[in-house]
Amino acid sequence: MLLPLPFSFYYGGDDVLPLSLSSGITMTVGALAFFLFKTKQEVRPKEGFLIVALGWIVFSALGALPYMLGNYIPSFTDAFFETMSGFTTTGATILTDIEALPEGILFWRSFTHWVGGMGIIVLGIAILPLLGVGGMQLFKAEVPGPIADKLTPRVTETAKILWGVYVLLSVIETILLMLGGMNLHSALCHTFGTMATGGYSTMNASVGGHESAYIDYVIIIFMIIAGMNFSLHYRLLKGNIKEVLLNRELQFYFAIITFATLIIGVDTYMNNYSTILETLRYTLFQVVSIITTTGYGTADYEQWSISSQLVLFLIMFVGGMAGSTGGGMKVMRVYLLIKFVYAEIVRLVHPQAIVPVRMGDITVSRDVMMNILGFFVLYMLIAAFSSLFLSFFGIGIATSIGAVAATLNNIGPGLEFVGPTDNYAFLPDIVKWLLSVLMLLGRLEVYTVIILLAPSFWQK
Amino acid sequence: MLLPLPFSFYYGGDDVLPLSLSSGITMTVGALAFFLFKTKQEVRPKEGFLIVALGWIVFSALGALPYMLGNYIPSFTDAFFETMSGFTTTGATILTDIEALPEGILFWRSFTHWVGGMGIIVLGIAILPLLGVGGMQLFKAEVPGPIADKLTPRVTETAKILWGVYVLLSVIETILLMLGGMNLHSALCHTFGTMATGGYSTMNASVGGHESAYIDYVIIIFMIIAGMNFSLHYRLLKGNIKEVLLNRELQFYFAIITFATLIIGVDTYMNNYSTILETLRYTLFQVVSIITTTGYGTADYEQWSISSQLVLFLIMFVGGMAGSTGGGMKVMRVYLLIKFVYAEIVRLVHPQAIVPVRMGDITVSRDVMMNILGFFVLYMLIAAFSSLFLSFFGIGIATSIGAVAATLNNIGPGLEFVGPTDNYAFLPDIVKWLLSVLMLLGRLEVYTVIILLAPSFWQK
Repeated sequence: MLLPLPFSFYYGGDDVLPLSLSSGITMTVGALAFFLFKTKQEVRPKEGFLIVALGWIVFSALGALPYMLGNYIPSFTDAFFETMSGFTTTGATILTDIEALPEGILFWRSFTHWVGGMGIIVLGIAILPLLGVGGMQLFKAEVPGPIADKLTPRVTETAKILWGVYVLLSVIETILLMLGGMNLHSALCHTFGTMATGGYSTMNASVGGHESAYIDYVIIIFMIIAGMNFSLHYRLLKGNIKEVLLNRELQFYFAIITFATLIIGVDTYMNNYSTILETLRYTLFQVVSIITTTGYGTADYEQWSISSQLVLFLIMFVGGMAGSTGGGMKVMRVYLLIKFVYAEIVRLVHPQAIVPVRMGDITVSRDVMMNILGFFVLYMLIAAFSSLFLSFFGIGIATSIGAVAATLNNIGPGLEFVGPTDNYAFLPDIVKWLLSVLMLLGRLEVYTVIILLAPSFWQK
Repeated sequence: MLLPLPFSFYYGGDDVLPLSLSSGITMTVGALAFFLFKTKQEVRPKEGFLIVALGWIVFSALGALPYMLGNYIPSFTDAFFETMSGFTTTGATILTDIEALPEGILFWRSFTHWVGGMGIIVLGIAILPLLGVGGMQLFKAEVPGPIADKLTPRVTETAKILWGVYVLLSVIETILLMLGGMNLHSALCHTFGTMATGGYSTMNASVGGHESAYIDYVIIIFMIIAGMNFSLHYRLLKGNIKEVLLNRELQFYFAIITFATLIIGVDTYMNNYSTILETLRYTLFQVVSIITTTGYGTADYEQWSISSQLVLFLIMFVGGMAGSTGGGMKVMRVYLLIKFVYAEIVRLVHPQAIVPVRMGDITVSRDVMMNILGFFVLYMLIAAFSSLFLSFFGIGIATSIGAVAATLNNIGPGLEFVGPTDNYAFLPDIVKWLLSVLMLLGRLEVYTVIILLAPSFWQK
């Protein structure tokens, strides 16, 4: 909360006090928590679940302070929603006029994305697999088991490498955006939104407000990068290009982007745009923005045909690669679900045969496959019942389903009244709270939060 | 096709010739097939799959003859759709004026339901489990393995018992409907539609056209019965009442009906109906009609609120019990999917524990659970991509999703332009063919048809 202050001073905004005050309160709470609850005991997996989920909630409550203290977002519900949306890298907003906020607050808003993205990379690649959650537990064998004294140095080491990559890529994107004419503030904010696949912009018209093909393509490329598994970036930097190119999840990720862009492109070329270049620019941007769950916009896709919107809706649930900052179900899970279905069909033809599900050279164990299948069923149940819950408040069917898909998958813009040109301000408070929970559920791979509701979790 | 003739003569319809001619052609085709392809070889499981899927297709092609030869439905696409919809007990119609058809043809139309329902009971309880498909393979252990010489007498015996129950219940419903003032023709047609959970009526306004609470309740009760596992009826008739009441799937089936009726009832009582009795009558009818995948209507549920429609949409996918004439995913699968998710959550809390999925006293094997999970993933993929396919033809999102849900789940009426007061006539031919395939897919538990597309199926 101190980082935005230079911008507050530079632009002479009225947000110096709210930011400083919030920072003081947060530091006090942190110091109190540190000294009151300090313990030498090792953290057990069960406590790991609780820390992860509670961490995100406490961060969001404290992160909402600058909005509230400065009266930019007076309602706690709204401020919490906006902050949870930031830390979970969702990008759904309750603001009706973003440009009315001072630069310091806008910086803070985008910075919550970047911090959340940082948390997710480490969580996704290093911590969740140890807890048995997330697509990455495929590689569980590569990481030492959940024995505390061995775990800590390894996680720290992994975290440092991944954060190094994350910072490096962020610096490059910021420079590239500044070369495109953005000032430092704007370039940083949009870099935070891109690298974390968040989607908060400093403009009401999102990235489209810049009206620059160069900026569109820079952001397209960095959204694609942010939607990739960050351990692949590390391998790329170490020169293992072949290994990265042979990665099945990556191939599938690019296949979906290509396929979706083609299907929608044919349609938008015929109905919305006049040249192939224009079609490619806007279609590719939207496809990448949605599949990586960033949620930036350069086109109002609600002007596109129903079928194109339906393609976007389907890839909302795919999301980024496991170990990326992207949300959704993750490319790896979708890939394995399809391979699993095929294996089941083959097993019906040859009931005696053993048909393993494979991903490249790795044979996926039955336990991991069961975990992924359970995830899928749970995800669908949550999506269905949440949409139903929204509809009880008289919210239309497309808006209900769109809002649930956009928050559970950590995208931001949804359909109809929560579409790319709208915001979430008009929804009843209770719905905003549910959507905040959905953002958290989606961000923490569902299980991490749901497990806290199981009675057996709380038994000794 | 000869059975409707008495009604044709009695009512003096112009359908005597088309029905007789169709019957002659069908008998000729049957006789040719019998003598040309007669073989002493035992049927192997692989051939079982092929016979089941092809059987439904050939039946639908031949069953379309009376409509075409009599010029009641001139287009082959439409006539095939109508017949497939009949045999799969879907009840989706392309007819705009049902009452314009002669009684003999209407009898044939409803009779396709009854025949299809007969096929499904035996298929679901006796044949599919042996092929490794369908919720009922839970009880695979109770049935001898797929060894041809042992199989045949057992299946025949089971079939006879189940058909006996089916005929008995149909006779009782027909009598009860006649006591409510229906004539024999109408009572038989509505019995066929009820017992097969089909939904073809002889009236444009469906069951609502009778405007009789007595008839509504008779049909409600028999829809509930038809949505139950038919082996439970047999056990009930043998006096094993306790065993039946303790059946978990049955309990869950009634729990969903009660819960859905309550949720929708509160809403329709406040917005649509004036008395509790009226609310119960129309709400219960629609809930039962949808969950059993019958599709009869006494109310235009599109006049109900969005949330009530969404509840109906969700139970569309639940469907009847395994071993009933109902479609959908089946109550048993939904029950086991939920229990599986819970088991996976417990497994995260206690990674070392073995957490079996249980259904009453039965422990569900991992193989069966994998089969059900594969079914669910496949079902969702088919629903998603079929809806997308429909939207390519400029069909709105609610209509697309509604039409897919209504055919894949073998219900009949869907949402928006294929809602309870509409029909499927306006759709492009290619969409009608896709929907016909979906009806077949849904009816034969998906795998039975999909397996034919696997290259390994066709390898020696």
